[in-house]
Amino acid sequence: MADAAMGAKMPTSNPHEVPDGSAAADLPMPLPPLIEVEQPRRPSAAEEARTLVANTTVGTLASLTSAGDPWASIVTYGQLEDGTPVLCVSRLALHGRNLAADRRASLAISATAEDSQDPSDVGRVTLAGEVEQPDGSELDAARAAYSAAVPSGEVFSEFGDFTFWLLRVHQVRWVGGFGRMANADPASYAAAAPDPVAPRAAFAVRHLNEDHSDALLEMACALAGHTDALAATCLRADRYGLDLDVKTPRGRVLARVGFAQPIVATDGLRAATVELARRARGA
Amino acid sequence: MADAAMGAKMPTSNPHEVPDGSAAADLPMPLPPLIEVEQPRRPSAAEEARTLVANTTVGTLASLTSAGDPWASIVTYGQLEDGTPVLCVSRLALHGRNLAADRRASLAISATAEDSQDPSDVGRVTLAGEVEQPDGSELDAARAAYSAAVPSGEVFSEFGDFTFWLLRVHQVRWVGGFGRMANADPASYAAAAPDPVAPRAAFAVRHLNEDHSDALLEMACALAGHTDALAATCLRADRYGLDLDVKTPRGRVLARVGFAQPIVATDGLRAATVELARRARGA
Repeated sequence: MADAAMGAKMPTSNPHEVPDGSAAADLPMPLPPLIEVEQPRRPSAAEEARTLVANTTVGTLASLTSAGDPWASIVTYGQLEDGTPVLCVSRLALHGRNLAADRRASLAISATAEDSQDPSDVGRVTLAGEVEQPDGSELDAARAAYSAAVPSGEVFSEFGDFTFWLLRVHQVRWVGGFGRMANADPASYAAAAPDPVAPRAAFAVRHLNEDHSDALLEMACALAGHTDALAATCLRADRYGLDLDVKTPRGRVLARVGFAQPIVATDGLRAATVELARRARGA
Repeated sequence: MADAAMGAKMPTSNPHEVPDGSAAADLPMPLPPLIEVEQPRRPSAAEEARTLVANTTVGTLASLTSAGDPWASIVTYGQLEDGTPVLCVSRLALHGRNLAADRRASLAISATAEDSQDPSDVGRVTLAGEVEQPDGSELDAARAAYSAAVPSGEVFSEFGDFTFWLLRVHQVRWVGGFGRMANADPASYAAAAPDPVAPRAAFAVRHLNEDHSDALLEMACALAGHTDALAATCLRADRYGLDLDVKTPRGRVLARVGFAQPIVATDGLRAATVELARRARGA
């Protein structure tokens, strides 16, 4: 399984990923820059998956009934430090009985759709593996993780019929949206850190597009190498840089500009973007 | 499988349904009215499930890998007239290969969370059964249903590697939120109509609570029979009536008031609620 995110022409994993990468869905194309520029870093599939799992608390569990049939059910979850999902499930519930009888399970998590985005273009991840009941200090960690993630979690975990389960992750499939998808190996998933700027990224993207379109255009020309750029909007922001949708006489281009340093603090996006804008202006 | 929604003390089907019905999660209790009143109609589990499926286009599919492992993946879907979900899946995708090799499948759908609601108190439904490739007029209907539901659906269904699948529903499990849950039999599910007012219900509930708290209090006293009511807020609105959270000296009470007639038109909620308010005032 490759741990390289984005760009690769992998088989599509979803009806809503455009097989040829972009044209059919009216998306910007990843055209080469007109001048030589540094290749900016991107989040790995493992990092993307960790970020998604860390910023959501509701997912869908696939478990097996006693007949071996698949059963999908909505669950809330917390996560351990290494991204291992923590479930808290009643043994009276069908999915609780399923897990107790057959440990194989899969959890699908979808990013919260911002605004009226196309649901096909929203990030999502599937984790698959086997559940295991934690004990000792891992049970304490599981209980704390679940309570931190789920508002009413503490109440439920007190009931005698509820069991904590850890989903030991054996497979990770990440889909970022149209044409962005990759697998991650379990070790990379466990080792990766969730993106610290993810919770504020959508706000930052809106702000950049509303108030700083000139700076985005300068970035597209000077840093992404699309010197014929006519306009640029920001599509995504992550700890390593910005994805831009750049209007050029050659068509719409998907471009990327990288921060000077990966951001490690939750509030680091503003300073990093200001530095990027200064660099683009040659200041 | 019982087709009666709400109120029954069924085994909990989810970690986030409070086992004893309500107390632990600080919810209104379904206490009896103080005077005799008519028992208002409620949507059946089949109707609740149909409504949820009709008002959402994204769900999570549980399918089986070649090893028989469960695999959860996000899918978009449309629906036929009888609520049969329509999927359009690439044969290159893992879940596409899964369905082609083993027809057993399950689809979990969650209502869109309004505002910052507790994710455990959001409606959800699990459908389970077997997928089947439609042909003839059913294929045309499937294509039309999918295109109507999914913005980019038309594009994908043109690609040669995409297959339409109908999920023939054999099992329906509905969970409305804390303490509201039931199974529906497949025939009732197919025969039920989605609630016509569902798309506007959240707006109506907000409006009632913001501008018509006096009318809600009058309804709680005169129509729901909680003559000691001190205040009332509306929790939910459906084609048959309103669920109220009523503050009384006995504690918080979950009450219901029924419309004179079931609403059949999308825009019928206002007139029905005005009639209810008039009746409560004895006008």
